[in-house]
Amino acid sequence: MLKGFTLPKSPFGQAALTPPPPWHYSSDVVGVEFWTDPGAAAATLPSGLTPDPKSNGRCVVMFLDRQFTAQDDEYLNPARYQYREAFVLLDAMYGDTPVMWCPYVFVDNDAALARGWTQGFPQKLGSIFQTRSYAAKSPAAAPLAPGSRFGASLSAHGQRLAEARITLRRPVQDGLSLLGRPTVLLRYFPRLAAGHQDKPAIDELTMSVTDNVAVAEAWIGEGELNLPEARGEELHSLVPQRIESGFRYSLAYSVTDLKILEDHTSR
Amino acid sequence: MLKGFTLPKSPFGQAALTPPPPWHYSSDVVGVEFWTDPGAAAATLPSGLTPDPKSNGRCVVMFLDRQFTAQDDEYLNPARYQYREAFVLLDAMYGDTPVMWCPYVFVDNDAALARGWTQGFPQKLGSIFQTRSYAAKSPAAAPLAPGSRFGASLSAHGQRLAEARITLRRPVQDGLSLLGRPTVLLRYFPRLAAGHQDKPAIDELTMSVTDNVAVAEAWIGEGELNLPEARGEELHSLVPQRIESGFRYSLAYSVTDLKILEDHTSR
Amino acid sequence: MLKGFTLPKSPFGQAALTPPPPWHYSSDVVGVEFWTDPGAAAATLPSGLTPDPKSNGRCVVMFLDRQFTAQDDEYLNPARYQYREAFVLLDAMYGDTPVMWCPYVFVDNDAALARGWTQGFPQKLGSIFQTRSYAAKSPAAAPLAPGSRFGASLSAHGQRLAEARITLRRPVQDGLSLLGRPTVLLRYFPRLAAGHQDKPAIDELTMSVTDNVAVAEAWIGEGELNLPEARGEELHSLVPQRIESGFRYSLAYSVTDLKILEDHTSR
Amino acid sequence: MLKGFTLPKSPFGQAALTPPPPWHYSSDVVGVEFWTDPGAAAATLPSGLTPDPKSNGRCVVMFLDRQFTAQDDEYLNPARYQYREAFVLLDAMYGDTPVMWCPYVFVDNDAALARGWTQGFPQKLGSIFQTRSYAAKSPAAAPLAPGSRFGASLSAHGQRLAEARITLRRPVQDGLSLLGRPTVLLRYFPRLAAGHQDKPAIDELTMSVTDNVAVAEAWIGEGELNLPEARGEELHSLVPQRIESGFRYSLAYSVTDLKILEDHTSR
Repeated sequence: MLKGFTLPKSPFGQAALTPPPPWHYSSDVVGVEFWTDPGAAAATLPSGLTPDPKSNGRCVVMFLDRQFTAQDDEYLNPARYQYREAFVLLDAMYGDTPVMWCPYVFVDNDAALARGWTQGFPQKLGSIFQTRSYAAKSPAAAPLAPGSRFGASLSAHGQRLAEARITLRRPVQDGLSLLGRPTVLLRYFPRLAAGHQDKPAIDELTMSVTDNVAVAEAWIGEGELNLPEARGEELHSLVPQRIESGFRYSLAYSVTDLKILEDHTSR
Repeated sequence: MLKGFTLPKSPFGQAALTPPPPWHYSSDVVGVEFWTDPGAAAATLPSGLTPDPKSNGRCVVMFLDRQFTAQDDEYLNPARYQYREAFVLLDAMYGDTPVMWCPYVFVDNDAALARGWTQGFPQKLGSIFQTRSYAAKSPAAAPLAPGSRFGASLSAHGQRLAEARITLRRPVQDGLSLLGRPTVLLRYFPRLAAGHQDKPAIDELTMSVTDNVAVAEAWIGEGELNLPEARGEELHSLVPQRIESGFRYSLAYSVTDLKILEDHTSR
Repeated sequence: MLKGFTLPKSPFGQAALTPPPPWHYSSDVVGVEFWTDPGAAAATLPSGLTPDPKSNGRCVVMFLDRQFTAQDDEYLNPARYQYREAFVLLDAMYGDTPVMWCPYVFVDNDAALARGWTQGFPQKLGSIFQTRSYAAKSPAAAPLAPGSRFGASLSAHGQRLAEARITLRRPVQDGLSLLGRPTVLLRYFPRLAAGHQDKPAIDELTMSVTDNVAVAEAWIGEGELNLPEARGEELHSLVPQRIESGFRYSLAYSVTDLKILEDHTSR
Repeated sequence: MLKGFTLPKSPFGQAALTPPPPWHYSSDVVGVEFWTDPGAAAATLPSGLTPDPKSNGRCVVMFLDRQFTAQDDEYLNPARYQYREAFVLLDAMYGDTPVMWCPYVFVDNDAALARGWTQGFPQKLGSIFQTRSYAAKSPAAAPLAPGSRFGASLSAHGQRLAEARITLRRPVQDGLSLLGRPTVLLRYFPRLAAGHQDKPAIDELTMSVTDNVAVAEAWIGEGELNLPEARGEELHSLVPQRIESGFRYSLAYSVTDLKILEDHTSR
């Protein structure tokens, strides 16, 4: 009997891409809130979501330095389980519920990619960097303080896809408003059998379920964002028309569940 | 209406991890045929396959330098679509049909990973290298000639998983016998919804379908293979007991279909 | 007139591998202090250094997540200037002065490599990871607290060279004793001209000069360390015989100078 | 007595970045010959070289898939010694001698970087890809035939620096004219000691010496080349004004020597 939460299934279950949930994450986030062309935002929505009439075109891009652990001290094996991520979320409606939709996301780690696909995050591989804040004082330290600046970037296959800079102005006491909406995803897996390639084996609208959410050291200020055009990508269709803010915070949460909103799979 | 064969689905279908089939591949292969502990080989078989009574324990490991194209000249964008791969195949029976089963496979490219998962190849990310043969004469050229040697290796997350060396002895006129069996795979995708995490959304035994198979410059000779023990992997359970041969050839084929042998998905 | 502190010299001086000093660094360090075979330690010493009769065989290995900046806000471009490093230092004597000698060091960034070579750090490329400590509470957060654990690893060319684990026990109020000795290096650059390949163009014993040293959040506890054997490396010759401690701290300093202790260059 | 041709010097000489010469190379080259602004080309020349009055502005960019070996079968360890490279050469005069000058070059391997610096190639790290030609027939094979096309690209730190495409038209029987000139380099290594940072420790104009040059399967045709602007680079200053040709060939040679044309080092 083969074991493992994902492929590869193996005799001892040690070879699987990711251990089973619960999945625990802690991270530092550098992000920019911005407004893009409402039509461009709406064009990314899957069946089941509609533009938010009050905030269509509102997006956030986030760059995350992440640490993962499950039940077996995976955080002590950072070569395999530590990773970096960048994604875009944009405002939408699921029926009467304001939600965020994730059209594009990149990670630099295969365990993260396997977990992400399981939830519906459409992860591709990328190279993600963010300026870090260090405890030891230095011109290189980027402290959490008014006026402190952070850079971040995303590249994939040698092309730069996003560059951001933020300047901190003030701590945010009561959390970031941008975390107020649940994230909706498309869980999707194609069929390859001839004659069925337009009938996916999985086609579900899902909602991310997160427990034990903890936010720390949240700061807000100004932001800049470039989304250069790149072949093989469509992230640049969400080019900013106006920047709302830049922000940085530490974020932790756990994942043990997923809500299936709609199952569109044709069987 | 979002477009794309895989995630991410996007307005223009340009962001998907892989273009739709037909998928065309050309490659150079360095490989070793070997015998492992029959119990270790049998332990990797999924439900639906049984050990081959005549050759249980026979394995091949292959290292591939690969080039991919679909319909849009993807081979001209090697930064995105060229890749390297390493996998193990081992003898098994599907009913009365002799087949090969792929328990472990590694690639260094996300487009390849997305295509592999769609077929049932359990791809993880790795770093794969093989000695190449160059046309310009040099001690560095590794010509296709008797006595010529090639090395190959596989690493993942900074751990060495496999090291092979082969010595060519003679060209093989009528193809490699090891290509005579079809490859059987486990197409598998988990559910994350609480209470359903042991009921995969896809659980299919599949058979790889390849067209336009072309083999060129096939040579056979001796081989060596090490499969060092590594945390988070089980490839080393297939450690060689006896080496049968080393080989090298060029291989091309196309993929436009997949045969579903058995669907074990519980709905 | 070409500009630039290092190659490539260019019309505007923007292409050079590293900007000129002052170089400012901030970092998090996970390390292990240990004792190796005294003969193995002594065998790594260059001409000009002798074993420390009181502590020959004492070594530290450190893994660093580093951020760099010079005069042009390089820390805002982390894709180019943020990096990771791992090195070994061992006790030695320069005349009557107790010093530390750096036989082996690895980085994952070419700007760091160029700076390191300029000082005499014998940097090769590697892949370095350490468990990080995050502000947001989680099983994945690795807080700075008694009993908290951190892992670290070093690989190069797909081979694992070092694996460490530490457990924090108590903060260290007055800095780490291991920082008390200056670091001595071999600045060395070969000649390639035939007949001169054994007469290096640079052969200097140097001492690292650091300003503005800041240590923060220093903790000490227990450590574990493996240095697996690897082809093309000699780090494993320093395999631990006894572990002294594990430690973690944040470290910042600036570099604007280098002391040349001895010039052995034959001209 | 420490051993090794370069750092790190070690007891057994196994840890050095590169083995000592002779160095043997075999490679496949995809390249574009083009004309840039003569002033931009002249601006890259070091002291000792002058613009070629007959062909100032003529450049070639080459992308190489390379295999290296020295005396110890290094080509059987491709994870450590196989690599990729991209560089620009441009026409210049050394006194009355027509030469080529190499202002910018990128590799993806530290052993190659150490050898390059030793000669005067100003190597930085980059990510280089070229379409390959495979023996097994396929739409993915890119045969050596009239009309066959090849792509190539160079990126560094996640920024795309060069993209080329070529179309083969006809084999070149008598070698490529572009190989007719020797390559001149700047061998340069800074001092870091305060007060001496503008007085390099090595400042030599050198000429590459290659033996056993072998060219095979040379083809010529058309080319396209983009050199996008990128921060931290000046390659884009050589943007093409006119494309002369595209070409592809296999190239092998050995290196055992270096000619020092002028020594500008101030001692």
